[in-house]
Amino acid sequence: MNRDKHISSAFDRDLETIQAMVVKMGGMVETAITDAAAALEARDEELAEQVRRRDKAIDALEAQINEDAARLIALRAPTATDLRMVLAVMKIAASLERVGDYAKNMAKRTSVLSQLPQIYGSGMALRRMAQAVSKMLQDALDSYIRRDSELAEDVRQRDLEVDQMYNALFREFLTFMMEDPRNITSCMHLHFIAKNIERMGDHATTIAEQVIYLVTGDIPDDTRPKSSSVQAEADLATGG
Amino acid sequence: MNRDKHISSAFDRDLETIQAMVVKMGGMVETAITDAAAALEARDEELAEQVRRRDKAIDALEAQINEDAARLIALRAPTATDLRMVLAVMKIAASLERVGDYAKNMAKRTSVLSQLPQIYGSGMALRRMAQAVSKMLQDALDSYIRRDSELAEDVRQRDLEVDQMYNALFREFLTFMMEDPRNITSCMHLHFIAKNIERMGDHATTIAEQVIYLVTGDIPDDTRPKSSSVQAEADLATGG
Repeated sequence: MNRDKHISSAFDRDLETIQAMVVKMGGMVETAITDAAAALEARDEELAEQVRRRDKAIDALEAQINEDAARLIALRAPTATDLRMVLAVMKIAASLERVGDYAKNMAKRTSVLSQLPQIYGSGMALRRMAQAVSKMLQDALDSYIRRDSELAEDVRQRDLEVDQMYNALFREFLTFMMEDPRNITSCMHLHFIAKNIERMGDHATTIAEQVIYLVTGDIPDDTRPKSSSVQAEADLATGG
Repeated sequence: MNRDKHISSAFDRDLETIQAMVVKMGGMVETAITDAAAALEARDEELAEQVRRRDKAIDALEAQINEDAARLIALRAPTATDLRMVLAVMKIAASLERVGDYAKNMAKRTSVLSQLPQIYGSGMALRRMAQAVSKMLQDALDSYIRRDSELAEDVRQRDLEVDQMYNALFREFLTFMMEDPRNITSCMHLHFIAKNIERMGDHATTIAEQVIYLVTGDIPDDTRPKSSSVQAEADLATGG
C-alpha cells in the first residue's frame, strides 16, 4: 500500500509508533474482556475491581494516541491517503476505548450479581460470548496491522454469530424471569451484560470495516450484521 | 480566548465553518431524540421510521466534520491550543453521532413495543426523560459555542437528575415485571430505552466536559455523575 509509494518515510515511522500504541491498547482491552468475564463467572470481586481500576490506563492510552495522531497530522501535513490512515487510527482507538468501558461496566455489575440468586449456566454462556468477541477484536487489529481485508471481512461475518449468542441468551433470560420473579433482577443485569458484549462485537466490526475501507476504499454497506439484534428481539417477543 | 491572540485568522474562519456543522448536527440529533420519544409514546411507527432514516444524514455530517477537521490540521498546522480545539470538535461530533444512534435504536424498538402490552405511564416518563436530555445536549452545544464553562458545569450537574429518572424507571419496570409476567418483554425493551436515554445524558456530559477542558484546561475528575447508575441499580436490587 502506502509503503510502496515512499519507502519508510518519517510519516511512516511516526504512524508505526502510533500503531504500536493501538496494538498495546488492544491487548489491554482483550485482557479486560477476558478478566471481566472470568470475574463474573467465578463471582471474583477482587478481579472485577482490578478490571475497573485498569480502565484508566486504557483511557489514558487513547488520549495519548489522539494527541500523537493530531501532532503527526500537524507536523507532516499528510496527503489524502495518509490522512485517511491517521483518521482510521483515531477511530480504532475510540472503538477500543468504548469496548474497555463496556468491560468496566461488566466488572461493576459483578459485585451486584454476587449478592443475587445465581442463574444456571449464565456465567459460562457469557464467558463464551466474551471469548468470541475478544477473538474478533484480536483479529480485527491483526487485519489492521497486516492490512488484510479478507480477515477483516471474516471478523465482520463473525459478528452474526455473536448476535445469535445474544439472542439465545435474551430468550433464556426471559424464560428464567417468567418462571420465577425472584430471578428478574439478576436477569436484568445479566441481560445488560449480554447486550454490552454484543456491543463490543459491534465495535470489533467497526474496526474491521475501517480496515476494509483503508484497503479497498469502499465503506461496507449498511446491511451489516449489527443492525439485526433489535429485529431478532422483536421476533422473539412476538413470534415465540 | 483564542480570538484574542490572532484576530480572525484563516484558522479561526475554518474552525467556525466546522463549528457551524456541529451546531447543525446538534439540531438534527435533538430532533431525533424528541421525535423518537414522541413516536414511542404515540405508537407512531411512521414517525419512528423517519427517525431511523434520518440517522444516515447525521452519520454523513459526522464524517464530513472529521474530514474537514483533519484537513484543517493538515493545512494550518495549528499550535497546541488550536489543535486542542480541533480535537474537541471531532470528539463532540463523535458524541453527537452516538446519541443519534441511540435515538435510532429507540425508534427501532417502537415497532416492537407497538405489538406488546402497554405499560401504564412509561411513554410519558420516557418522553420527559428524553426532553431533559435533549435540553442538556442543546445547552452543552451552547456552552461550547460561547465557551461558557459555567453553563457546561450546569449540564454536568443535571446528569444526576437524569440518572435519578432512570433509577426511578428501573424500579418501576421491576415492579411491573414482578406483578405480571406478561409485562416482562415490554419492560425489557422499555428498560433498554431508558438506559439508552441515560447514556445520551452521559454523552451530553462528555461534551460539557470537553468545554470545561477547553476553557479551564482542567479535565473534570472522575467523580462525575454518570458512574453512579450501576451502583444505584445495585442498591435497588439488594436494599429495596
